[in-house]
Amino acid sequence: MYSFRNDYSEGAHPRILELLSNSNYEANIGYGKDIHSHKAKEYIKKLIEKEDADIHFIPGGTQTNMLVISSFLRPHQCVISADTGHINVHETGAIEATGHKVVAMPCKDGKLTPDIIKKALDYHTDEHMVQPKMVYISSSTELGTIYSKDELISIHKICKENGLLLFLDGARLGSALTCRSNDLNIKDIANLVDIFYIGGTKNGALLGEALIILNQDLKEDFRFLIKQRGAMAAKGFVLGIQFEALFQDDLYFELARHANEMAERLGSIIQEAGYKFYTEPYTNQIFPIFPDTLLEKMEKEFVYEFIDKVDENNTAVRFVTSWATKIEAVEALRDFFNKNK
Amino acid sequence: MYSFRNDYSEGAHPRILELLSNSNYEANIGYGKDIHSHKAKEYIKKLIEKEDADIHFIPGGTQTNMLVISSFLRPHQCVISADTGHINVHETGAIEATGHKVVAMPCKDGKLTPDIIKKALDYHTDEHMVQPKMVYISSSTELGTIYSKDELISIHKICKENGLLLFLDGARLGSALTCRSNDLNIKDIANLVDIFYIGGTKNGALLGEALIILNQDLKEDFRFLIKQRGAMAAKGFVLGIQFEALFQDDLYFELARHANEMAERLGSIIQEAGYKFYTEPYTNQIFPIFPDTLLEKMEKEFVYEFIDKVDENNTAVRFVTSWATKIEAVEALRDFFNKNK
Amino acid sequence: MYSFRNDYSEGAHPRILELLSNSNYEANIGYGKDIHSHKAKEYIKKLIEKEDADIHFIPGGTQTNMLVISSFLRPHQCVISADTGHINVHETGAIEATGHKVVAMPCKDGKLTPDIIKKALDYHTDEHMVQPKMVYISSSTELGTIYSKDELISIHKICKENGLLLFLDGARLGSALTCRSNDLNIKDIANLVDIFYIGGTKNGALLGEALIILNQDLKEDFRFLIKQRGAMAAKGFVLGIQFEALFQDDLYFELARHANEMAERLGSIIQEAGYKFYTEPYTNQIFPIFPDTLLEKMEKEFVYEFIDKVDENNTAVRFVTSWATKIEAVEALRDFFNKNK
Amino acid sequence: MYSFRNDYSEGAHPRILELLSNSNYEANIGYGKDIHSHKAKEYIKKLIEKEDADIHFIPGGTQTNMLVISSFLRPHQCVISADTGHINVHETGAIEATGHKVVAMPCKDGKLTPDIIKKALDYHTDEHMVQPKMVYISSSTELGTIYSKDELISIHKICKENGLLLFLDGARLGSALTCRSNDLNIKDIANLVDIFYIGGTKNGALLGEALIILNQDLKEDFRFLIKQRGAMAAKGFVLGIQFEALFQDDLYFELARHANEMAERLGSIIQEAGYKFYTEPYTNQIFPIFPDTLLEKMEKEFVYEFIDKVDENNTAVRFVTSWATKIEAVEALRDFFNKNK
Repeated sequence: MYSFRNDYSEGAHPRILELLSNSNYEANIGYGKDIHSHKAKEYIKKLIEKEDADIHFIPGGTQTNMLVISSFLRPHQCVISADTGHINVHETGAIEATGHKVVAMPCKDGKLTPDIIKKALDYHTDEHMVQPKMVYISSSTELGTIYSKDELISIHKICKENGLLLFLDGARLGSALTCRSNDLNIKDIANLVDIFYIGGTKNGALLGEALIILNQDLKEDFRFLIKQRGAMAAKGFVLGIQFEALFQDDLYFELARHANEMAERLGSIIQEAGYKFYTEPYTNQIFPIFPDTLLEKMEKEFVYEFIDKVDENNTAVRFVTSWATKIEAVEALRDFFNKNK
Repeated sequence: MYSFRNDYSEGAHPRILELLSNSNYEANIGYGKDIHSHKAKEYIKKLIEKEDADIHFIPGGTQTNMLVISSFLRPHQCVISADTGHINVHETGAIEATGHKVVAMPCKDGKLTPDIIKKALDYHTDEHMVQPKMVYISSSTELGTIYSKDELISIHKICKENGLLLFLDGARLGSALTCRSNDLNIKDIANLVDIFYIGGTKNGALLGEALIILNQDLKEDFRFLIKQRGAMAAKGFVLGIQFEALFQDDLYFELARHANEMAERLGSIIQEAGYKFYTEPYTNQIFPIFPDTLLEKMEKEFVYEFIDKVDENNTAVRFVTSWATKIEAVEALRDFFNKNK
Repeated sequence: MYSFRNDYSEGAHPRILELLSNSNYEANIGYGKDIHSHKAKEYIKKLIEKEDADIHFIPGGTQTNMLVISSFLRPHQCVISADTGHINVHETGAIEATGHKVVAMPCKDGKLTPDIIKKALDYHTDEHMVQPKMVYISSSTELGTIYSKDELISIHKICKENGLLLFLDGARLGSALTCRSNDLNIKDIANLVDIFYIGGTKNGALLGEALIILNQDLKEDFRFLIKQRGAMAAKGFVLGIQFEALFQDDLYFELARHANEMAERLGSIIQEAGYKFYTEPYTNQIFPIFPDTLLEKMEKEFVYEFIDKVDENNTAVRFVTSWATKIEAVEALRDFFNKNK
Repeated sequence: MYSFRNDYSEGAHPRILELLSNSNYEANIGYGKDIHSHKAKEYIKKLIEKEDADIHFIPGGTQTNMLVISSFLRPHQCVISADTGHINVHETGAIEATGHKVVAMPCKDGKLTPDIIKKALDYHTDEHMVQPKMVYISSSTELGTIYSKDELISIHKICKENGLLLFLDGARLGSALTCRSNDLNIKDIANLVDIFYIGGTKNGALLGEALIILNQDLKEDFRFLIKQRGAMAAKGFVLGIQFEALFQDDLYFELARHANEMAERLGSIIQEAGYKFYTEPYTNQIFPIFPDTLLEKMEKEFVYEFIDKVDENNTAVRFVTSWATKIEAVEALRDFFNKNK
């Protein structure tokens, strides 16, 4: 049985485990004020070329989204999201639980555009309606797509013109930045958004997201807010150490590149076998469409997720690769197709 | 420099790291539905002799408190806590952020009593005031004290009589249950409270608290609430593995006993050196009072926390031991006293 | 200048003012426990034939919606609404501010159907998504449409089958129940929903909505919740007196019938003049479509609201009649059309 | 039976009812944008000599408190209040329901002092605790006491020095400003606080509080927040008209003076009869202490509230006078004492 269920099935990359193990008996300061967290932040600041960025390591992704959105909006303000956005669909109302409406806009490929944002702005005309104040995007998106540099610049522009904060959920940023179609680098992102995060959980860490605040106005008292939302780990160094391991050299991107390569190869195998995709494959999540008769056999050998019934006889599914995906697993799919021609 | 700053300074016990490492390449199901979490729950159920308990592994303590309290109260209901309670003082208003008042009652030694609970109930008379519905206690408390079996029974009784839920914060339950004065066992607790948790973070895990719901009425839909509060780790197995290591044998209590022994020894050394305590020492947190002149020297060799200026010349401080405290560190204090007679 | 802006432009019906005035020097008990509130509740209970209904007078409509929805949902639960629903669009996120997502479904004529509710239920499959627990409908709707008896029965049925609470916003219930197309009576409603309210503000009162709780499970502690949301008027008798005046005889429905008659007449005049409607006219809100060239003249003599640009040259507007609308105002529109043939 | 239960038992002063009646058929703009609200605001601005104040009419007091506090604090910030403060005790956790902790400080006579505020500030030292950002005071207080000019200046000063917003709850401001001991005028208040309100409900209106925002930084988007908290009356003119009647001449203060005179007279009668007070009488709420044997008889002729059992045989009660209190009611107490000597 080969699993392509998701990118958070395995533990952590060995170099992370090793650093955790080597630092195990140090007497660290709690709550993220330790030396490992400090070093990890320095590595990331250097990478994004923003010495004055504020960086915080947060245990989970939903937690990070809820923390960011609730910290920077006043009570009457809302966040604009793609209707497929994680905060709109897959966080059990975590954002609303902090008091804010998610204004969900129908989108193609899981991506907001300036036109769609404009539409949301135009709709909210007066004090009887919530006030849009933040735009939430993710890259890669829930559908595995990414924002190009031009696309991100144009979203940045409409946000600036309308006093909107721009927040990028980078739970899968590694995969987005290392995929073949990408023309953005992490410095571009740091220049174009107000807040973003670099996901660790889905790219080789046991857990943890590196939240980066670039907008000077948003930095004040943020540690109070982390604590209030239950997101300040007592052993903050457990997060710090992992990001130290990921960013002291190129490990973070190395892992993401591996996941993308495995996905690309998987994509080629699927294409060669004659199948199509639900959305074009870009990153480490791909969405092939298979006949239901084939899936009946496939599910005995592979683990993946159901996405959508596309017609009477065919179904879109999701295959995800990770830093830990082995080439044997990928090649097993080729064998499967050969067997089932 | 020897650190007695807290019990969350070091990483994890080696057997935990080992199990993490050995399980590293398994393809686990996400969100706590993995086999390790399952095993860990079975161990704990057996230990507390409650086959029908619902157990959930939560990343952090503040998160657990906020999750429990917000899940089981209706909007107009409040939780009664000792004024020194963690939820009242040290969680940056996390409980209030979910909409609920903490009714903080002045207490001795950090402990609620039936009389104090009664006082809180009597004060809240009508619909213009919040309605008490839950009692929050912790053992050990913020002051290192513990509840005796009789005390817990009497609190259980007043809760039952008044329709109050009883929630025990066991962030330091290991130390409470293994200290010399303790006459409670974990089965008693499971019989006397509606919800409690067994703290991992402060007793040898990298992070994680095992939340145990005993009251049948509170079990429904709880995973929705975990998710909503950002407390459902994608790699839930990272928590499950740790609790598996802690509870597959006696490791959890072994670690707590060690911490207590180190604290006892520390206490004896302090007492022999002629110093008194701010509150009687019971568990792994002790609160000696030292002359300020001595502390000036002590702080060059030991790390501890300031608690209270007790008079013009003397100060109460906090020394905490952990599973990782070495006897050399403890004995170093004896040497320090000898040098500074 | 004749105003058809809305149904909350004028004060109160003279019989309400008179009763307020006549009771002015009584020493009433506060917070809704007065004799007038009691009498008004008895009149309403008799009318709906539910002696055990719990009735509460609430100052405003948004307040009532937010109070009901936040009182009866657990934190992870959501309310299903038409996308045009007042709670989704025109309450500045009041529902979300209490922590709950509004799941807004695209609808025709502002009305939910069992099929649409089913779609919302089917979409929400697991604990990563909010859990539907309440259906919110209004009658008449934001588009002036009403639910027929069959429609309400079918919605009641799907709610029962799926454990959903059914809440009917009756801010304009008077108009709905007295319009020509209506086949429901208020007793039907009381039998088919869990909670509903009878709007006073938009039907002749200075302010006030009569909230009626029929579902036994929802009654407990509701006055605590009213108080907490700032909805318990110190001078609750000011609301009680008004509903006493409205329901001690047929006044409430008399006023609504008048508004509907004026709207019908207005509708006929518009139709006779050759114009069409954006949605079919049923109640006291009608939505004619006029050429922009005509509107330029019309706005100098009449007050109404802009709704939608339907094509390059024509615009839908809203005309609202009320208990206070005078026949002269209606006939003035006929004159206007005659002048502007 | 004479009622001294409270100052919100009767309807409205006849001049208010008259203006409501005279304006009844006007077609007003909704949501507080009408001409009466405008006029009332102009009268108040002139009175407080602040042309640039933002004034909003809010239906109720608890609503106003919850609206103000939740609008101006970030999530991690708290409000400091006297432990007897209305927001701490008598609002069913309305403030906490918006997410904020009320830090309740033990006080004498229901009044905060700079020393007590300082103590609250000193206690909150870091990000593990809520951050004090607002001071809430009321005048008159729950105990009928008032702040002197010097006292208010000193509180203003400590607030300025520590970046705290100062919010004065003036539900009974009329009585405070017209009582014999008062040395403050309403212009002083407008100069010394950031936000305050002038209570209508407890001084002759059917309902309504005039909220006044003086601090420029707090004005933005406030109508969104009013709407979101359910505090924007559709018929806002009903509030506007009442404040127009109260402030177009001296009516507001006239009514308050009457209430105070009745309370003073009541106080003299009680004193002459040989009884003492629980707190010194200043305003329209007085707190005499009577023997329980006397109260047994008194309760057959007078309505008042129980406050506190002061010893085995004596009880403190509360007598409240209002704009509508008749001298006969007051003199009836004298007769009662004479009969029961």
